[in-house]
Amino acid sequence: MRICILGGDGYLGWPTAMYFSARGHEVMVVDNMAKRGWEAEIGAKPLEHVPALKERARRWKQKKFQPIEVVIGNIADDGQLMNGICHDFRPEAIIHYGEQPSAPYSMLNQENAVYTQCNNVVGTLNVMFAMREHCPQAHLVKLGTMGEYGTPNIDIEEGWLDVTHNGRKDRVLYPKKPHSLYHLSKVHDSHNLEFASRMWDFRVTDLNQGVVYGSDTDEIGNDPELCTSFHYDDVFGTVLNRFVVQAAIGMPLTVYGSGKQIRGYLNIRDTLRCVELAVTNPAGRGEFRVFNQFTEQFSVMELAQRVRESAAINGMKVEIQHLRNPRVEQEEHYYHAAHSSLSSLGLEPHLLNHEVIGQMLEKAMKTANRINEASILPKVDWKQGWQAPVTGLSTAVPRLQAVRA
Amino acid sequence: MRICILGGDGYLGWPTAMYFSARGHEVMVVDNMAKRGWEAEIGAKPLEHVPALKERARRWKQKKFQPIEVVIGNIADDGQLMNGICHDFRPEAIIHYGEQPSAPYSMLNQENAVYTQCNNVVGTLNVMFAMREHCPQAHLVKLGTMGEYGTPNIDIEEGWLDVTHNGRKDRVLYPKKPHSLYHLSKVHDSHNLEFASRMWDFRVTDLNQGVVYGSDTDEIGNDPELCTSFHYDDVFGTVLNRFVVQAAIGMPLTVYGSGKQIRGYLNIRDTLRCVELAVTNPAGRGEFRVFNQFTEQFSVMELAQRVRESAAINGMKVEIQHLRNPRVEQEEHYYHAAHSSLSSLGLEPHLLNHEVIGQMLEKAMKTANRINEASILPKVDWKQGWQAPVTGLSTAVPRLQAVRA
Repeated sequence: MRICILGGDGYLGWPTAMYFSARGHEVMVVDNMAKRGWEAEIGAKPLEHVPALKERARRWKQKKFQPIEVVIGNIADDGQLMNGICHDFRPEAIIHYGEQPSAPYSMLNQENAVYTQCNNVVGTLNVMFAMREHCPQAHLVKLGTMGEYGTPNIDIEEGWLDVTHNGRKDRVLYPKKPHSLYHLSKVHDSHNLEFASRMWDFRVTDLNQGVVYGSDTDEIGNDPELCTSFHYDDVFGTVLNRFVVQAAIGMPLTVYGSGKQIRGYLNIRDTLRCVELAVTNPAGRGEFRVFNQFTEQFSVMELAQRVRESAAINGMKVEIQHLRNPRVEQEEHYYHAAHSSLSSLGLEPHLLNHEVIGQMLEKAMKTANRINEASILPKVDWKQGWQAPVTGLSTAVPRLQAVRA
Repeated sequence: MRICILGGDGYLGWPTAMYFSARGHEVMVVDNMAKRGWEAEIGAKPLEHVPALKERARRWKQKKFQPIEVVIGNIADDGQLMNGICHDFRPEAIIHYGEQPSAPYSMLNQENAVYTQCNNVVGTLNVMFAMREHCPQAHLVKLGTMGEYGTPNIDIEEGWLDVTHNGRKDRVLYPKKPHSLYHLSKVHDSHNLEFASRMWDFRVTDLNQGVVYGSDTDEIGNDPELCTSFHYDDVFGTVLNRFVVQAAIGMPLTVYGSGKQIRGYLNIRDTLRCVELAVTNPAGRGEFRVFNQFTEQFSVMELAQRVRESAAINGMKVEIQHLRNPRVEQEEHYYHAAHSSLSSLGLEPHLLNHEVIGQMLEKAMKTANRINEASILPKVDWKQGWQAPVTGLSTAVPRLQAVRA
């Protein structure tokens, strides 16, 4: 199958590219390297050195795999890029990771908020118009997030909700109340894509993904020249990845507020398999299909405790510290989210156990010398934006003061 | 009260400015004149010559009313404009009409789609950040549209819906399935604004307005130097205004498809009163309030028949012609939309009767020499975009061929 992966330089984009290539698909990756710029902007670095995308593609080819074609370009700013790709490459599936993926980054200030929404929404609009013109039969697999739903007091369904109201029935888009301007950009995308499927008979799968952890995949193996960008900082690091890195350097695990916030989680290996299941079982023409893509749900405290236990098994003592929550979110809430569609298609989850956490810990400890402790503490306040320069944490720490539970 | 009106050069913005000024408020209008550019771009002209905004403000002052301050600037492209206004003027209410308002314009091509969503969403984001910084207590009155809801099979409520699902209850944002990328831009705005009220304790009223008709207000009176921009073309003209102009020049009233599409409508005089009711009864801190702003609902055929009847009363014979519907929309659908909030606050509607249509007809006939018949036929197809240059209608007409009902 001809598969075009947008955001192919990213944490998930690159492993996805190798995954499909290894299975005999013809893969093109597109990226504008913007994420590397955002990292430089906020002073964050991935845990391991991540070779340039073209170098990783060269290494992949060297290993005798089907080559991955690399296109460097900006799908949002360059309105013609996707038109050219859809015309020339004629993708049968487009996997769209190509967005600014961080909630704190979007809440940092006005400029980042505007950038995040414009970049994400316009990129997706450009994909829609290019597909309409050149490959209306292609299947668009768009990465959304479970964070779009927020924490409603009713069960979260997979994208749609059957409603009875005043004696009449309808199937409506699941109503959303997300917690950041980044998450809102994905809500906007979802509305635009539901429209495209309705107007233009598009095949669309919206994958509302939980929080991903891990950096090991079969394709990466032990080859550092094929690694993916694993972040542990407060802006781009996801919570479990962050906790593991904190444990590895003996820093307390920093929990925002009570830590009772519940979210869905999944192993990076399951991300790849879920995307494969979506691609190989495409949505029908005119179908806007939503899958909730996670395997288990945990509270933040449960995660912290698991990491502490895994560390203890490995002879390490780890503390848990509660920080004033810099985000505006419900800390005590109902959370029950459906996620049966991908299981029905054949997903067999890699669950979170001490072995998985132990492997993550081991990896983090090997690269401990690269870890910048200051980059881990939260510096973006949901009510006021950026609270301290990255290099001057001292003013931030009192605001987000540690309070023992 | 200090009131800042965004989009103050527009069809509704300018009459709103005079309305509040005449009632003793301190009014600032902001506009970037973009609409006049879009008109030139598609070759549409308002029915009457509309003097420049500054000329109209000068005329208003000449008549001994409280002066209206005019600011020429772009709230979307200039990220600092609203910061300066909120800092210096300290508005107590911001009335936000400052968006690209046409569904066909947004569906014309990729560039217009991207422009519409960026312009509208970014303008509103910039307003949000300026308010957060300089006037978080101000009340934002944002113009949305009834078109955001689409045509669900259940009753349309005012912005929020009480849901019971699997035995649990929640109050959720009303789920939306609009019919154009323009309407989607307003859906995005609504989500962003609900977020702002939740995160930053904003007072927000979202006015989901029906289709407005008419161009007479007490403040305009008979003064052509104070008139507002009345459009009758397929891109910026609303349906009743378009029908009246067609009747005035003896052109058949062009109904898209069966004409069974039902929408909410209101007189321009009621728009002004509704906005006043919202401004003088502000939302509370942290409240995202939605009012459905229309007074009556009609099918397109009912409107066409009313115009035909009114014309007959005035001795004119008018035909009704059905065109293939260039839009993708349900033509037969349930439609029942709540709109009691503004009535509860004191709205006394100006209903659509033969006197009102007769006055509109009379006005249109006076300026009949300015009417460009070619600009009335639909040229934007929802599936394929622009179908013919404005000056070369011949190729468009076969596509959107007339079929007698």
